[in-house]
This record gives sequence, C-alpha cells and structure tokens, in this order.
Amino acid sequence: MKKLTIFDVAKKSGVGKSTVSRVLNHDQNVKEETREKVLKVINEMNYKPSISARGMRSNNSRVIGIITSRLDSSSEAQAVRGMLEIIYSMGYDVVLAESLFDREKTKEHIEMFMNKKVEGIILFATSGVEYNYLKKIKVPVIMMGQEVKGFTSIVYDDYGAVEKILKEFQNMGLKKIGYMGVDLSDRTTGYRRYQAYEKFVNENNMKNISAFGDFTYKKAYELTEVLMEHEIDAIVCATDNLVLGVRKYLLEKHIENIVVSGIGKNELLSFLYKNHITVNLSYKKSGIEAGKMIFKMLSGVSTDEKIVMESHLVKGE
Amino acid sequence: MKKLTIFDVAKKSGVGKSTVSRVLNHDQNVKEETREKVLKVINEMNYKPSISARGMRSNNSRVIGIITSRLDSSSEAQAVRGMLEIIYSMGYDVVLAESLFDREKTKEHIEMFMNKKVEGIILFATSGVEYNYLKKIKVPVIMMGQEVKGFTSIVYDDYGAVEKILKEFQNMGLKKIGYMGVDLSDRTTGYRRYQAYEKFVNENNMKNISAFGDFTYKKAYELTEVLMEHEIDAIVCATDNLVLGVRKYLLEKHIENIVVSGIGKNELLSFLYKNHITVNLSYKKSGIEAGKMIFKMLSGVSTDEKIVMESHLVKGE
Repeated sequence: MKKLTIFDVAKKSGVGKSTVSRVLNHDQNVKEETREKVLKVINEMNYKPSISARGMRSNNSRVIGIITSRLDSSSEAQAVRGMLEIIYSMGYDVVLAESLFDREKTKEHIEMFMNKKVEGIILFATSGVEYNYLKKIKVPVIMMGQEVKGFTSIVYDDYGAVEKILKEFQNMGLKKIGYMGVDLSDRTTGYRRYQAYEKFVNENNMKNISAFGDFTYKKAYELTEVLMEHEIDAIVCATDNLVLGVRKYLLEKHIENIVVSGIGKNELLSFLYKNHITVNLSYKKSGIEAGKMIFKMLSGVSTDEKIVMESHLVKGE
Repeated sequence: MKKLTIFDVAKKSGVGKSTVSRVLNHDQNVKEETREKVLKVINEMNYKPSISARGMRSNNSRVIGIITSRLDSSSEAQAVRGMLEIIYSMGYDVVLAESLFDREKTKEHIEMFMNKKVEGIILFATSGVEYNYLKKIKVPVIMMGQEVKGFTSIVYDDYGAVEKILKEFQNMGLKKIGYMGVDLSDRTTGYRRYQAYEKFVNENNMKNISAFGDFTYKKAYELTEVLMEHEIDAIVCATDNLVLGVRKYLLEKHIENIVVSGIGKNELLSFLYKNHITVNLSYKKSGIEAGKMIFKMLSGVSTDEKIVMESHLVKGE
C-alpha cells in the first residue's frame, strides 16, 4: 500500500494542503466546520502525519498526559479510547497514568508529566487533586466528569439521566420507586444524581426510599435489604455496577416483580439481564470531545468553560 | 509527618545506607535476599527516593514503558498494578499504552517509547509484534503471558490450571466433561489450555466434547448450545469471562445440574455465582515479578529465560 500523504487528505477533504497543515498545527485560522471535516478524513483514512507535515517544532514534546482513576474502569476506558483516536490522529503521543483515587499519586503523576514536558493534561476529576496546585500548571488542563471552577470541564448529564429513568418509570405506571445511591460526598455520581431523584419524589408526592453506599456491587447487595423493608416496585441505581448487587439480592430472594435500572450502559449488564434499562452517558464521545478540545486550547482558541455530554435512555429488548 | 530518608529505610531493613543505595541503583553486588528485604521495606514505608538517593545519572530517563492489549482487561490491570508497585518504589515513572491487539499500533508505541528513551519495556504478548523488530530494541524487554524465544518471559500456568480443574471434577465424580475453549491460534489461552483437556480425556477414556470461540461471553453463549447437544455434567471454560456466557445460557434454559468452571479468578464471577470454581493464575504477583525482573536486567544480572507463575484452585463457598 502506498503511504498516505498530506495531499491525499487534502483531496479527500476538498481543501488545500495548507489548510490540512494548519489543522495539524492547530492554527486558529481554520473554520470550525473545516477543522472537523479534515479531522474526520484523517481518522477515516488512518493518516499518520510525517514529522515535516506536522511542522515539528523542536521544543514541543507532542505528548498529552492522561490520568485515569482506575485503569479497568469500563467508563473511563471508553472515554480514553475516544481521546486516543483524536490525539494519535494529530501525530501526538499519550502518557497514561492511574491514580486509584489517591491525591498524592495524582500529584506525582502531574509532576512526572511536567518533567516529560507534556503539552496538555486530561484528568478524570474523581482522581482527586488540590485545585490550587493544578492552577499553577502551565499547560492546558481538562477535567473529566466534574465541573471545576477555573478549568475547562467535560461533564456527564448526571441529573438528566436520573430524570429520564424516572419519567420512563412513571410512564410504566410505577409509583413506589426506591433509590440506590453513592455517598453524597461524591459530587456528581453521588450528589447530582440523588438530587434528581429527591426533586422528582417531592414534586410527585412520592415516598423517598433511598440508601447510599460506595461504588461497589457488594455494598449495593447489602443495602438492597434496607430498601426492601419498604414496599417497592422499582429501584433506580446510580450506576450500572450497583445493579449487579441489587439483581443478585433479588434473584436470591426470588423477587421477580421489581424493575431495576442503572446508568452508564455497561455492555455486560445488557448481556446478562433481559430488559435492562440504563442511560448512555456518551463516554466515548466525551473522550473525542476532550481530544478535540485540548488541541483547540493548544492553538489558543478560547473554549467553553463546560461541556455537558448528551444522555440517552436505553431499553433492552 | 517527617519526610522519610534513606536512613529510615536502612534502619528498618537492618542494613547499611550504602546497601539501600545499591538496591536503589540496582547494583548487582547485593544478595538477592537482601534486595528483596529492602524492597519490601521501601514498599511498606512508602518511601520515595530523592534524586540524590537515587544517584540520578543525567542520561537515564528513569522511565519504564508498558504495553497492554486492553486497558480494561481485569487480568492485565491486576498485573500492571503489581508492576507499578515495584517501579514507583524504585523512583521510576511509567509510560503506559494500549495496543488493542494491533501489531502496527504496538510497533508505534515501541517507537514512541524509544523516542522517550525508556530504559525498559514490558509487553503483554497478546498485543502482537514482529519479534525480529523487537530483537533490535536496545533496552531490556519482558514478555508477559507468552513464552517467546530469545526474550525473558513471564507466563501463566495455562496447562496446570486446566489440569487442576479436571482433577477436582474427577474427585467430584463428574465424568462427562465438556470444554469451552478459545480459538487454537491463540497459543496459550487457546492452545495450551485445550492441550491439557485433550490429554486428560484421552488418558481417562472420556469423550472429547469441545467448542472453540473467541474471548467474548457472547460467543460462549452461542456455543453452549453446541456443547449441550451432548450429554454433559460439567463444562470447563478456558476463562472466567466465557463462564458469563455459559451460565446465562444454562439459566435461560433452566438447566441446573451442570457444574461450570472458569480460569482467572475474576472478582465479579465469585460475587455473582455461588460455588464458582476457578483458578488463580497469580496476575498481580506476575506484575511484581516483572517489575523486579526489569531492574535485575537493568543492573546486568542474568535472569531466567522464563518464569512460570504458580496457579491455585479456588472454590467459592
């Protein structure tokens, strides 16, 4: 196969070589529409820019640093894949690290990134970090999953996701709806998602039946017993992972008439359970957005402070 | 808290400061036993060597590169965590990449690593790579999961794991044993694990009832139907992941008298299924071994060509 050149990309995109070159060098004098079109073609053709096409400046490392909270988190892995698509297509490399929710570790990773002279950092916010420390960092930073004042953030539709589920349950005629949540000290998956539930039951004069654990299915399993002390015909879980615990409890007790929903569209859950109801939070898309955003920031284009990803109700057959 | 120094580590280890320093600089004039003891103390105290304690040489990047096949693989994530424990405790950083089983991508990652002047590379062998290319690499390389001639390899007890399960089934009085495998073109999870089954049924004059798919639970679900055309009282699965598909099929068909086993000790499976039988392949330990090994190699100590990790039968209550 003949090696693809910048001319092939230009031809396919219907623009000139110099425009492709400007996109690759994240020059801000490119219309947003054109930039998107060229990036799409680059992805589709799997074009790898040569060093000359990238106009490599020797003082640039052409590396982006990414810090996940857990490597084997299915949601973060989906987002990271989206990021990699964009970052690699720009001829950049990635340094990836795992914080395991440890602030100190996150800080060490950032220090390592700065030693390696990364040009930008994308951080899953649950990793935890002192924001004052982060503000001193001299390269663009994007926060994933939580809005942080003073930073560009890409967040999920935590509130809307729970709302969508509750409206669906209402349409199904379900009225006694319990909530399996995550500790409220977690600002998004914990607090924001519960807020939507709380508002909904208040507005509809429904009983508030809720329990709060951590992110594990084991804790959710234990807490299902607490919810079941009440009369209930549905349980809204703050994440798909919690559904595993709830479903196990119900299965063991031979309870079949309770509808259970999750959030996150974990592939395994849709496989294991017929009629699994969940919400797609656009994890992969959020990674693609983050990838595009970091290059905009590098080219000095001003970006929105906050992007909220769209969410979609997903009902299994 | 007072910052820990090299003296604290020396005191706790019962050795002199210069010995600790030699361990940190992977000098080969340290007894293996002493090295292990000092590394253990470093880990326990969470000691981070300062630059002077590490005797930083300016031409060393103090970075190790790791290539996984999938970020969200539970087995690889466990191994990577083991590696990080050792590598960070030596004051080194890690660059992590994902190949998605793509040879070209693996090669690109290695090129990126060499540009970043990594001092060593640990590669999950299922990533796929041309070994002739890899042989030209001038830094120590460790292959995880597959034995590759000419490279230091850390492999799992693929053969012994299946043997342990089959002996357990024999003790339980099970005689009609089916096998849910992975395509034989995969040398370890596919071929080696099946070899153990094939030999066992031949030696015991049992019927060979086997089916081969890929690594997904979806394919395992489809193939269970094929196995069930035979009279069967147990199914040995090549991985825990495949168990998810087999169990779903049996549950849907209300088949309750078949014993199912996996391999890999996936936490979720032990949670979901009572009496889950599996084999612990020592993933995390394999990562710790790999971490120690790469520093031995860096210090010029000759290492074994191949380490086989131990395996243990795990029976759920």
